[in-house]
Amino acid sequence: MCRFLAWAGAPRYFDELVLNQEQSLVEQSRNAMIGKTPINADGFGLAWYSERESPCFYKDTNPAWSDANLRQLAHHTRSRLFLAHVRASTGTATSRNNCHPFGHKRWSFMHNGQAGGHERIRQELDGMIPPECYEHRLGATESEAIFLIALGEGLDTDPIGAMARAVGRVEALSRRRGVSPFMRFAACWSDGQRLFAARYASDEFAPSLFHRRCAHGIIVSSEPLDDEQKKWVEVPTGEAIEINDGQISHHRFVPPLEEAVAA
Amino acid sequence: MCRFLAWAGAPRYFDELVLNQEQSLVEQSRNAMIGKTPINADGFGLAWYSERESPCFYKDTNPAWSDANLRQLAHHTRSRLFLAHVRASTGTATSRNNCHPFGHKRWSFMHNGQAGGHERIRQELDGMIPPECYEHRLGATESEAIFLIALGEGLDTDPIGAMARAVGRVEALSRRRGVSPFMRFAACWSDGQRLFAARYASDEFAPSLFHRRCAHGIIVSSEPLDDEQKKWVEVPTGEAIEINDGQISHHRFVPPLEEAVAA
Amino acid sequence: MCRFLAWAGAPRYFDELVLNQEQSLVEQSRNAMIGKTPINADGFGLAWYSERESPCFYKDTNPAWSDANLRQLAHHTRSRLFLAHVRASTGTATSRNNCHPFGHKRWSFMHNGQAGGHERIRQELDGMIPPECYEHRLGATESEAIFLIALGEGLDTDPIGAMARAVGRVEALSRRRGVSPFMRFAACWSDGQRLFAARYASDEFAPSLFHRRCAHGIIVSSEPLDDEQKKWVEVPTGEAIEINDGQISHHRFVPPLEEAVAA
Amino acid sequence: MCRFLAWAGAPRYFDELVLNQEQSLVEQSRNAMIGKTPINADGFGLAWYSERESPCFYKDTNPAWSDANLRQLAHHTRSRLFLAHVRASTGTATSRNNCHPFGHKRWSFMHNGQAGGHERIRQELDGMIPPECYEHRLGATESEAIFLIALGEGLDTDPIGAMARAVGRVEALSRRRGVSPFMRFAACWSDGQRLFAARYASDEFAPSLFHRRCAHGIIVSSEPLDDEQKKWVEVPTGEAIEINDGQISHHRFVPPLEEAVAA
Repeated sequence: MCRFLAWAGAPRYFDELVLNQEQSLVEQSRNAMIGKTPINADGFGLAWYSERESPCFYKDTNPAWSDANLRQLAHHTRSRLFLAHVRASTGTATSRNNCHPFGHKRWSFMHNGQAGGHERIRQELDGMIPPECYEHRLGATESEAIFLIALGEGLDTDPIGAMARAVGRVEALSRRRGVSPFMRFAACWSDGQRLFAARYASDEFAPSLFHRRCAHGIIVSSEPLDDEQKKWVEVPTGEAIEINDGQISHHRFVPPLEEAVAA
Repeated sequence: MCRFLAWAGAPRYFDELVLNQEQSLVEQSRNAMIGKTPINADGFGLAWYSERESPCFYKDTNPAWSDANLRQLAHHTRSRLFLAHVRASTGTATSRNNCHPFGHKRWSFMHNGQAGGHERIRQELDGMIPPECYEHRLGATESEAIFLIALGEGLDTDPIGAMARAVGRVEALSRRRGVSPFMRFAACWSDGQRLFAARYASDEFAPSLFHRRCAHGIIVSSEPLDDEQKKWVEVPTGEAIEINDGQISHHRFVPPLEEAVAA
Repeated sequence: MCRFLAWAGAPRYFDELVLNQEQSLVEQSRNAMIGKTPINADGFGLAWYSERESPCFYKDTNPAWSDANLRQLAHHTRSRLFLAHVRASTGTATSRNNCHPFGHKRWSFMHNGQAGGHERIRQELDGMIPPECYEHRLGATESEAIFLIALGEGLDTDPIGAMARAVGRVEALSRRRGVSPFMRFAACWSDGQRLFAARYASDEFAPSLFHRRCAHGIIVSSEPLDDEQKKWVEVPTGEAIEINDGQISHHRFVPPLEEAVAA
Repeated sequence: MCRFLAWAGAPRYFDELVLNQEQSLVEQSRNAMIGKTPINADGFGLAWYSERESPCFYKDTNPAWSDANLRQLAHHTRSRLFLAHVRASTGTATSRNNCHPFGHKRWSFMHNGQAGGHERIRQELDGMIPPECYEHRLGATESEAIFLIALGEGLDTDPIGAMARAVGRVEALSRRRGVSPFMRFAACWSDGQRLFAARYASDEFAPSLFHRRCAHGIIVSSEPLDDEQKKWVEVPTGEAIEINDGQISHHRFVPPLEEAVAA
């Protein structure tokens, strides 16, 4: 289990959310309130959209709380759209290549969750990645695999549907070969214009996911960053949200498992 | 606050104590039971005595739980005398140079505690280090300074007295220029033959320190490694122990503060 | 191109070969004499056989010349059989997971060379790895893939034949989908008892490989470690050597390309 | 010996100078043309001025050529004033704390050179640092010490004179206690508005230093970044330049050694 947050709105310094909140992401790396792993210290990552088309990534394997570079960058950099992640490994090695967010062209993606029996299904998972994306397979996480499979499912034209199909295909694989729980999934992804987030599980324990509207933008986060519980809206399981130009739209997020199994 | 353990006895694989106990040192790096910082993930270190005269050091800045090299070395290396430490920084940077144990010739040293107002007194502390030892000043911790000052106080000929004098000099400095608590100190040090440990504080909150006699040797540790509470003997505040050839001798450990101030 | 060396003989401290020779492995990391990449600073690794059955690994991503832990371990550890490697990446990320030697059970393996068009063929290469070994696929190098494929080809019972078949299968894949040069290969591998080394290329530029008999054992190395050129015997292209109990036996090493292609 | 470059002018992406030139700084990290250490792979650092008053720092201990974060940041970040440095250690450990540029409030500083007998004089050097700056002493290099001493000499009000006095005091110390060469110095420093650079040596071997005027700004660099040799102006030994709003002014840079010795 990991923790993440994202921002879409007026340009904002990262440290305002990543470091300076009561329950900032760095605080969550030491002491997450929701979820089964209070310590998320197996690396971290940031992705943000600058004036270039593709996002910029900064990742390292240190605990977020002790990384001097992270403090510097978070204090000096702002962006209208950024994603930030702290990792608690579910078995895969601590390595920059396994740190979220992952990226491809203008897309960025980060994830909290697991596919049951990941080690057993990893080779088949790797085989599902579209060949033209495989050279972008840098690490060994199922998170990165889901992202690359979603690219092959048409993320560019159908960002929510493609992600749901990717999750469905991986869940189907886990059901065939893996162990329960087959799929627990909370994720955030962006093309630099729109920010997407979705929540889903094959059992009743979907990872937590919240959003909050602020004066100049919207935060998406694994858990509330402050005590104002009423301001934080929980995303229901089986739902995705799309944030575009300050508007939030809601969508079903139900991975098409049957078809995926059939395929 | 940090956590540490040491072994003196028959050659023993590190992982038996560092990884495989209920409350092993690596477990303490995630979840220390005693002391105010449950997470000790700002680096770790090992020192062990091989067939060479000086000890061998392995240190890194990762959390101990995720370091693949540590797992490998701990599984394959054994020694009759080793020290192991996980660090929770009290402000100084996470850096290999700030990881314990520290070493000089045949000596190794590791520490849990603090000198109040460390940042204010650091330059004077650095000035107290004997010039011939200053090139061995690699980092910026007061722990390393105490060790190097103790070398200058005659660690070679009077291992417990020299350490007490060093602690006294640093406490005196902290009293003059620093902030309370002036000195909290639990430490372990060795010349490759004898293992020393001491516990002391300028207030009533000395860091915890225990030892336990096993079949083939003696463990010294910040906290018990298992549930057999009766087997673990707490070292009283103001006391040092010396382990030599399976024998434990007890000594007063009262830093000579007055003289130190006078000096 | 990378540089490596291995030792089989009486227990020997690593630093005698890794650090203290004129053209030691660490010196080669700065200034290799043979081969096209004088700097080999994209990580390094050591594997050695202790009293445990499986080898011990120490790897990191720093240049070998600046790693304080490597200096310590190399000065304090000795083994009758060890492998050491410094890496010059041919494109894959600098990561511990991409550092040689690789291991599985009692086997260790290190490699210098390349399969042409690695990025294009990587997914198929991953598909060739036996499913039961895939969870040991930690990184993204073709070197690790060749090793795991060789395990599937029967490394345990036919150490040289299995390696040749693995190399042949990878070369055949590179011929079908990759770019020339299809295969350049120098490698060293061991089961803890025997040390194997082989040299081969699909063109006339096989990576260099030497061995030298010393008083108490045999060195295998990418290039001579000293000026005594006459003492160093070059392994011919298309040949493998097996070192067992001080004896060197010579074998053909001709990857069965036709069959591999047929398969 | 290290390599560095700086930019003052219109906002410019770092990668244009740090990565994309023929003899870019990253290329210099592998293969410097001038100076005695062709490899500068013991860490690197960037400092740039954003909209905050103090500069932003990004430093790490990897070789610059293999740091994925550096590539990302250099491609996505631009600044009107930035400093970049690749390090070849002259003995001090590879550590983020020893990487240039160093900073304090709005100042940044980077250096190429050495004070003879650094290890012998380090404690006295540390004693010269103004007490109020000592908590900013993070590492162990003489470069950082010179910078902090210059702050104490009045860098804020007399940026060139204060630096010259600091260099003089350190040279005087090296003459009293160290070994020749007593001082070799090329450096660049900035307050976010003005960029300063100076070149000096106590013997005839001052480190190289160049500048070049471009369409929209001025580059300062250890060595020319391209083949247009005529465009690069060498800074003479004993001279400092000040770049302010596109204008270059020239100043003597003669450390006041006599007075320094007297003091």
